[in-house]
Amino acid sequence: MTETRFDVLTIGNAIVDIIASTEDDFLVRENIIKGAMNLVDDERAEHLYAAMGPAIEASGGSASNTAAGVASFGGKAAYFGKVADDHLGGIFRHDIRAVGVHFESKPLKAPPPTARSMIFVTPDGERSMNTYLGACVELDSSDIEEEIVATSKLTYFEGYLWDPPRAKEAIRMAAEIAHKHGRRYSMTLSDPFCIDRYREEFLDLMRSRTVDIVFANESEVKSLYQTADFNSALEAFRADCEIGIVTRSELGSVVVTADETHTVEAHPIEKLVDTTGAGDLYAAGFLFGLTNDRDLTDCAKLGSLAAAIVIQQVGPRPSGSLKTAMQQEGL
Amino acid sequence: MTETRFDVLTIGNAIVDIIASTEDDFLVRENIIKGAMNLVDDERAEHLYAAMGPAIEASGGSASNTAAGVASFGGKAAYFGKVADDHLGGIFRHDIRAVGVHFESKPLKAPPPTARSMIFVTPDGERSMNTYLGACVELDSSDIEEEIVATSKLTYFEGYLWDPPRAKEAIRMAAEIAHKHGRRYSMTLSDPFCIDRYREEFLDLMRSRTVDIVFANESEVKSLYQTADFNSALEAFRADCEIGIVTRSELGSVVVTADETHTVEAHPIEKLVDTTGAGDLYAAGFLFGLTNDRDLTDCAKLGSLAAAIVIQQVGPRPSGSLKTAMQQEGL
Repeated sequence: MTETRFDVLTIGNAIVDIIASTEDDFLVRENIIKGAMNLVDDERAEHLYAAMGPAIEASGGSASNTAAGVASFGGKAAYFGKVADDHLGGIFRHDIRAVGVHFESKPLKAPPPTARSMIFVTPDGERSMNTYLGACVELDSSDIEEEIVATSKLTYFEGYLWDPPRAKEAIRMAAEIAHKHGRRYSMTLSDPFCIDRYREEFLDLMRSRTVDIVFANESEVKSLYQTADFNSALEAFRADCEIGIVTRSELGSVVVTADETHTVEAHPIEKLVDTTGAGDLYAAGFLFGLTNDRDLTDCAKLGSLAAAIVIQQVGPRPSGSLKTAMQQEGL
Repeated sequence: MTETRFDVLTIGNAIVDIIASTEDDFLVRENIIKGAMNLVDDERAEHLYAAMGPAIEASGGSASNTAAGVASFGGKAAYFGKVADDHLGGIFRHDIRAVGVHFESKPLKAPPPTARSMIFVTPDGERSMNTYLGACVELDSSDIEEEIVATSKLTYFEGYLWDPPRAKEAIRMAAEIAHKHGRRYSMTLSDPFCIDRYREEFLDLMRSRTVDIVFANESEVKSLYQTADFNSALEAFRADCEIGIVTRSELGSVVVTADETHTVEAHPIEKLVDTTGAGDLYAAGFLFGLTNDRDLTDCAKLGSLAAAIVIQQVGPRPSGSLKTAMQQEGL
């Protein structure tokens, strides 16, 4: 096997989040699906920004949040994603490198601009995202640095990458490189509506073992198998992946393999502030554990800890060190 | 008297904050004066950004935070300040208008870019600012909209405006307009080092009654009169302004006039997170009260409430409604 440089490489849409508090009736009035990732074009992005209250900006993007989380645990992380050569692109690059993630994807020199997601956080802490993909639509196979994939213990990508046009080719190419070098490949199903758009392709990725390890939340796994019954969905999921991980908010998480089931409680919290990044940080903790030889129960506990920390603050990446938090919890 | 359109007009350096957590040794290593506003040129700004950890961006600027606070209390607020026609300028404009502040200052079409302040927050919650003034240096008398000054019950500006070259002329001009229309004029002394740079001019503004109402914190009022004795400073302050307000962090605040002294306790807090905006929001509460016919003790209580709220979150402007908080406190 090639020498190992990174624990986890992640690939995703490189996005800066624009986060504001709002009331539920605003979502209804603006036809925003609550709790979902709504794709918007530039015209609607402008309309929503004009209607949005005072906001803060923070680097986001699902798989980039996961890479930042792995690095915060003390893991070695890398990231592929497409920003433009503009102000938001500079913010994104600064923030991901500042936490220690290797990020050398070439920025786009021409329009469209760096992607942004307007995130409305309602009083219940739920986030509703409105994403303008911008430069992310240009991500393609030329952005896959073979040497990085070959030297990463595990490569992980977000299902959201099926939205931009050419990223899926890049993802299939990276899977071949990873497997050729005896590495593991992993994905998150991202969002129930994303699954509606690409259900057959996602199932094919799993059944062909293009991906080995799959993350989903409860509504995503139900959406994948089009069932309202969690146990039926879980059994189908178990059959379709080497390791399947289902997060269930305050009900904790379940990890399934062909012959094992590990159920782990949610990490306790004081006050839910903003769910943005919960799934991304769960994956960060889990994958940090998995690539550092922890057992599956410990991986789930690390995921739960990271998720609990990120939902008690505004924004998708923990402001403090996850390594310190892990040590304080004796994990 | 002219018809009244606004409760409070504020004038200041229009800045976007870039906020990151850090340890004290970073401040020492980078020669950043803790708790102060350090002015930086573009080269040092780039150096510090490269050394800075992952950050979030939020609209800031002392007097603009005050205007946003007045609006959040339900007051009618306006703001003059100079941004550039760039991405950060767009963020600044969006955020201040989104909270309901009237802001029509013309953006600068040429360089320099919109001002930014890199704010390092240490574990004790103290913030140390590193401000690149950018477009703010172009603020001048042409930015004073006479009709807005004439129709505002009170105009307030930040002492920081003595740093850019031509803002002081604008401030003196606005004072004449305000007083001609029977309006009040107010300032904050901003920062002990700012006072070191402009002590005589600030004292002259006060003694000539160009300003009627002056805000300072304890170290600023001591710096102004170059004394370590708080009571001596307070008596000198009393003699130099119509209303003097001194904030003292956890010791509360003191309001002095020629023959009155009002001492008000600090509003209790659960956890200090980030002191950014504390003085700005105190001024917001006080000025909202003053322009809405509250007595001086109530004004100080409103200031303390707003300050307590903003120091329990990251960033210089409260994410929730101060009007709601005021009603919940029965103020």
